[in-house]
Amino acid sequence: MHPRPSGFVALLTDFGLADPYVGIMKGAVLRASPRVQIVDVTHDVAPQDVEAGAFFVRALVGRFPAGTVHVAVVDPGVGTARRLLAVAAHDAYWLGPDNGVLGPVATGEVRAIDVAHLGIRPESNTFHGRDILGPVAAWLAAGRYGFASLGPLVVEPVRLRTGNGSPRVLHVDRYGNLVTNVPAAGLAGVGGVRVGGQVAPLVRTYADAPPGGLVALVGSYGLLEVAKNGGDAARATGTGRGAPIELVPA
Amino acid sequence: MHPRPSGFVALLTDFGLADPYVGIMKGAVLRASPRVQIVDVTHDVAPQDVEAGAFFVRALVGRFPAGTVHVAVVDPGVGTARRLLAVAAHDAYWLGPDNGVLGPVATGEVRAIDVAHLGIRPESNTFHGRDILGPVAAWLAAGRYGFASLGPLVVEPVRLRTGNGSPRVLHVDRYGNLVTNVPAAGLAGVGGVRVGGQVAPLVRTYADAPPGGLVALVGSYGLLEVAKNGGDAARATGTGRGAPIELVPA
Amino acid sequence: MHPRPSGFVALLTDFGLADPYVGIMKGAVLRASPRVQIVDVTHDVAPQDVEAGAFFVRALVGRFPAGTVHVAVVDPGVGTARRLLAVAAHDAYWLGPDNGVLGPVATGEVRAIDVAHLGIRPESNTFHGRDILGPVAAWLAAGRYGFASLGPLVVEPVRLRTGNGSPRVLHVDRYGNLVTNVPAAGLAGVGGVRVGGQVAPLVRTYADAPPGGLVALVGSYGLLEVAKNGGDAARATGTGRGAPIELVPA
Repeated sequence: MHPRPSGFVALLTDFGLADPYVGIMKGAVLRASPRVQIVDVTHDVAPQDVEAGAFFVRALVGRFPAGTVHVAVVDPGVGTARRLLAVAAHDAYWLGPDNGVLGPVATGEVRAIDVAHLGIRPESNTFHGRDILGPVAAWLAAGRYGFASLGPLVVEPVRLRTGNGSPRVLHVDRYGNLVTNVPAAGLAGVGGVRVGGQVAPLVRTYADAPPGGLVALVGSYGLLEVAKNGGDAARATGTGRGAPIELVPA
Repeated sequence: MHPRPSGFVALLTDFGLADPYVGIMKGAVLRASPRVQIVDVTHDVAPQDVEAGAFFVRALVGRFPAGTVHVAVVDPGVGTARRLLAVAAHDAYWLGPDNGVLGPVATGEVRAIDVAHLGIRPESNTFHGRDILGPVAAWLAAGRYGFASLGPLVVEPVRLRTGNGSPRVLHVDRYGNLVTNVPAAGLAGVGGVRVGGQVAPLVRTYADAPPGGLVALVGSYGLLEVAKNGGDAARATGTGRGAPIELVPA
Repeated sequence: MHPRPSGFVALLTDFGLADPYVGIMKGAVLRASPRVQIVDVTHDVAPQDVEAGAFFVRALVGRFPAGTVHVAVVDPGVGTARRLLAVAAHDAYWLGPDNGVLGPVATGEVRAIDVAHLGIRPESNTFHGRDILGPVAAWLAAGRYGFASLGPLVVEPVRLRTGNGSPRVLHVDRYGNLVTNVPAAGLAGVGGVRVGGQVAPLVRTYADAPPGGLVALVGSYGLLEVAKNGGDAARATGTGRGAPIELVPA
């Protein structure tokens, strides 16, 4: 069934660190339960970039102790009628707005947080991370509420429509690596990747690449990545997030 | 009286994260008491921007568990004769230099940290976050010293003089929202806000705004904010921190 | 002998915060042992800047509770045959790649982490922070493995060759201070520092500097620094990391 809460609350937001929002939300978590352990995943998701938030959520699946409560706040619709969701999936819990940010985990049991039923009276219309999601995460992590009591089941959570599934760049990381949506399992018979007019041969590890050369390999996400040995593949190919790629036969 | 220490030490600095200062200060806290829980509020206050630090301090009032020890280090005068203060106010403790950064909480009981009396011999003249404030915060949070034993009472802590109290923009957040110094209680009879030559109608929530429209509303600080639906109000109005605003009758 | 593990795992990486890597590595630490306390030192070392990572490592020596496990991941050679090291030095433990990042502490007992012997089967060739260093740090911090059982002794760890030891700028901090490689002990008979064609007189503290003036003083690292009172010394002198300096007699 659902995992026992681990006491960890992992925070993923687009709040940035030049505003007091992150600190205030942490305070709200700790006021709701001083015993939980807060873990900063990041607060540097680009502002209101729901798709980037969903990429992080997918990347966190299976990566924390069972029973961790993840909170993902990328919420351009705060203050509208959009729901707040709680999901039990992949041996963890996931809280966030119903705007697609939780799409990668919304295959699990999804509930709509029933704010009134939980006795919450939000102090604002603009900061539900502080007023709702933070306290609910703490209560769930501390075992004060069970998952099923957070609210009614949701049948159709919002999902992002991103591309038509054709091969493309999902994310560009700090090192300029192009992370694609092609899983390792989809590489049978593939010898390379064409991106930005260049072809990167498929290798097993960075060490197999000539210095300065472009290579394709299965990266730490279990997805095909294009990297430049000792350089920045995004710059070298003139591409970025969303760019189409083409798999070249061996 | 003063709250029982909660064991939390919340850090607010202008150190940035490209230098080792934050890590070194955390080490100093944990060496003084390994049992306290450090919470990062932010380390991204603009360098030596005491007014921005004070804005954070005000925003944190009432937001953490009772007995939290907040440390605010924005300290352009480090190494001069400026005092270091400890304040008990709003059910929490606040440590920082006597330069106005603690102004928003300095209505409470204010003491000057008596470095010699506490047995501290600062290792440097330039890093009192490490040499003094970090250890004192840990000792206070861990209950090794009571608040009253930190040093003598201070009658007149330094306060910032910022504007003449006329309505203005206090802070621009990551989303481009203009946070003003007008509290919710000051909005009787107000129908909108003029800023940068434009008028933003007063609404209850973002959802009441036309797409792309400028609106004014009471935000999560309990202060009037000007926002652009799906956009950046600072950019749209060509204004920023300190800009004057005008309240327009309904 | 070696210190008893303190339960702290201090993280120092070049991962940045715009990618999920930091969150994933923290998850890997906590999955290996949920009882350790993670402390973020920084994740903002410039990408693949091993020398900057080593500067942080040196700055952390002696600054954390005895028995802290420091993990330094600046690892351009990930996926090649480069070793991963564990060092016991200065009453703490230090894990990282064998590329010089641990040079400042590699005077202690150095071991090569024996991945196979520890039962680790890395999931990727590109993310050893998650697959190896995070779990090993947690096991060491939690006392599951003793230091000596991590792998065989290493005689010649890689060291950076940086300059010929002549006086120069090691690091420019957020405030524009120029941190040099000249220790306090090397200042007998010195009256000032020439850098970028200007001379900064040696003073005891910032307070001794005229407003706007350039000064040299022993900073919090115990090293000679050049600072501008109320300004940015790097900008004022047109210099940066690696710039040569000259000690001027008193």
